[in-house]
Amino acid sequence: MSTAADAATTPAAANDEPLVLREDDDGVTILTLNRPRALNALSLPLLHALREALDDIREDKSVRAVILRGAGRGFCAGHDLKEITSHRDDPDGGRAFFETLFASCTDTMMAIRNLPVVVIAEVQGIATAAGCQLLSTCDMAVASTESKFGVNGVDAGLFCSTPMVALSRNVPRKVAMQMLTLGHMIGPDDARTYGLVNEVVAPDELADTAMAMARRAAQKSRAVVALGKEAFYRQVELGVEDAYSLMGRVIVDNLMMRDAEIGIACFIGKEKPEWEDR
Amino acid sequence: MSTAADAATTPAAANDEPLVLREDDDGVTILTLNRPRALNALSLPLLHALREALDDIREDKSVRAVILRGAGRGFCAGHDLKEITSHRDDPDGGRAFFETLFASCTDTMMAIRNLPVVVIAEVQGIATAAGCQLLSTCDMAVASTESKFGVNGVDAGLFCSTPMVALSRNVPRKVAMQMLTLGHMIGPDDARTYGLVNEVVAPDELADTAMAMARRAAQKSRAVVALGKEAFYRQVELGVEDAYSLMGRVIVDNLMMRDAEIGIACFIGKEKPEWEDR
Amino acid sequence: MSTAADAATTPAAANDEPLVLREDDDGVTILTLNRPRALNALSLPLLHALREALDDIREDKSVRAVILRGAGRGFCAGHDLKEITSHRDDPDGGRAFFETLFASCTDTMMAIRNLPVVVIAEVQGIATAAGCQLLSTCDMAVASTESKFGVNGVDAGLFCSTPMVALSRNVPRKVAMQMLTLGHMIGPDDARTYGLVNEVVAPDELADTAMAMARRAAQKSRAVVALGKEAFYRQVELGVEDAYSLMGRVIVDNLMMRDAEIGIACFIGKEKPEWEDR
Repeated sequence: MSTAADAATTPAAANDEPLVLREDDDGVTILTLNRPRALNALSLPLLHALREALDDIREDKSVRAVILRGAGRGFCAGHDLKEITSHRDDPDGGRAFFETLFASCTDTMMAIRNLPVVVIAEVQGIATAAGCQLLSTCDMAVASTESKFGVNGVDAGLFCSTPMVALSRNVPRKVAMQMLTLGHMIGPDDARTYGLVNEVVAPDELADTAMAMARRAAQKSRAVVALGKEAFYRQVELGVEDAYSLMGRVIVDNLMMRDAEIGIACFIGKEKPEWEDR
Repeated sequence: MSTAADAATTPAAANDEPLVLREDDDGVTILTLNRPRALNALSLPLLHALREALDDIREDKSVRAVILRGAGRGFCAGHDLKEITSHRDDPDGGRAFFETLFASCTDTMMAIRNLPVVVIAEVQGIATAAGCQLLSTCDMAVASTESKFGVNGVDAGLFCSTPMVALSRNVPRKVAMQMLTLGHMIGPDDARTYGLVNEVVAPDELADTAMAMARRAAQKSRAVVALGKEAFYRQVELGVEDAYSLMGRVIVDNLMMRDAEIGIACFIGKEKPEWEDR
Repeated sequence: MSTAADAATTPAAANDEPLVLREDDDGVTILTLNRPRALNALSLPLLHALREALDDIREDKSVRAVILRGAGRGFCAGHDLKEITSHRDDPDGGRAFFETLFASCTDTMMAIRNLPVVVIAEVQGIATAAGCQLLSTCDMAVASTESKFGVNGVDAGLFCSTPMVALSRNVPRKVAMQMLTLGHMIGPDDARTYGLVNEVVAPDELADTAMAMARRAAQKSRAVVALGKEAFYRQVELGVEDAYSLMGRVIVDNLMMRDAEIGIACFIGKEKPEWEDR
């Protein structure tokens, strides 16, 4: 949750900078949440901007992996409590706006999950409330030794009910409950032990580590990763027999793809594959 | 499983002490399983007493957090094998009693889960079989460096089928299977790594640590925690889309509560909230 | 995935040795995948041989625990890419063969899960792709400090869609995604932290550790373990209320078994039980 000084609710950040910055680097796209003085709080305009950036990437075959990070000292501090408060005086007490806000938040989270390329969170500081949800939703995460993780909405009388959907599918239940009901923050070492992040590195190695991970992802067949990522999140919710039934079809379809033919031949021949992304 | 000397099946413990002790301390209620010489084995009367204590708490708005502990040197050694054996001579070989016993056990476990305040297990010694189930069912747990965890009913020819419902939702599958099929005990460090307990401390710091955790829980809005705890256990069983659909409604309802208005205003103003618990 | 030199697709290994070796030792059966020069790649004939060995064990009441290991320096390197490639020239491009292969693989995995005795993986080297699936499917696992785990099919253009069914039910999601989309390998320490293996020991202690675990499993009532293992995998897929409803019946049925009567009496009397396996 953010209450930082400049948590403006207008779309434009300082100097009319965009709310989400996009940088493309040889198949890797870096998206930067750009409300640094608000600890990148997820105002509705920022959620829209992020959703739009993700939609653009979805259609852009040149993008093979995404890094998501936050400008400034924090990754993301969750929803913008000043924006929320500003709607208390709406005729309906804010209900319609709140419904729009959280529907938009869920849409954006699902857009990350449904993106055909992997999304790697790069966490340099705090990831709290919906910021922790955002991190949890990413396919992978790298964190610095200075990072902190929490879902402490309860301290403001707002239980992190939507963030916990993502969090509780990443960490053990008692850990999630401790974070949710006490406002307990965990550090990077616990986050790694529990599987909330994949790697923990020194702050000055963070960007390079995330980029190395993204480059490695970008070297794979985009079509194969797209098929696999979608399949992963489908099967994980099924009983094991249904999961195998579905995955049996997926892996045969994958084998009939051109990139499996190329890839297996190169693997046997110890050559570097040139993917056709189909 | 307990076979300790005085595992009496009569409701009263030695000196007619109650089977469950209740102590109230400024919003925190401590429930103590009180069959220390039977390692607090869960006889039917003890299960009834615990269920009753939980029902009382449910209606008591002054209770904001619960600590559950065991008197003596163990947390809880599971069902009372002498009580079970004493029903072998029933005309039906004990079946009716066993059905009553395990239905009562499940009811009591679900009463913990359905309680509108958090329940923190404080584990000083062994937590085995249904005692491990009890710990697993609590929302959080603190354990001493002397604690031990097992579901070793298999050693007595009784697979811990009901305990594993709670355990297998707290630890990885292979860990659960090792405990269940081998009677393998794990120590506090593994329990923390796997997420079965939240904190491990020296024995002489155990009570203070549990109390500090409970005090922190008690400072939150009771109404908000009640809403959040119920929502947590509902969403965790759903697919992610259904979970978001449900939690989207929950968080908007939460925002319309008085305590969210109070809490967010205080959070922004850096003041201490005075909850109205609604 | 294996591309090792002798990845023959004929049933017989070198010297006409069987593809799966079986050794019986006082209630413990050791199954050894026996294509060492192919890193025990799961060709269709090997899958059939393993399935047959499991079917034999299912009917053999003298077997009380199974150890599964791989001959040579690796546990299992997954499917046999040369076998797969050899079917590219089939009139249908291989589709029918691939369907048969993966159906057979799933059948074999489910046969491990449905076996009435526990199966312990003993992992001395690499367990990759379907080899990691095999390990994940086993009830427990012991690994040497030299072991490595991966689901790196993506490097050959073949996402490990069927292996991830088993893997993602053993490790946290982000860990699974890192392994699946990057081809990232994890070592034994991470495997233990995440619960993919139960114990990590020096290479020269591996066989003894697996055997000690199997011996301990073999000392339990075969009938009780059979009931418990089946129940475990059923309840873990259910919501908690359905799980308790089912397990309440299972544990009462267990109590009515002869071995529960024997076991509880011996437990109380501190005697060693002589199971009747019923």
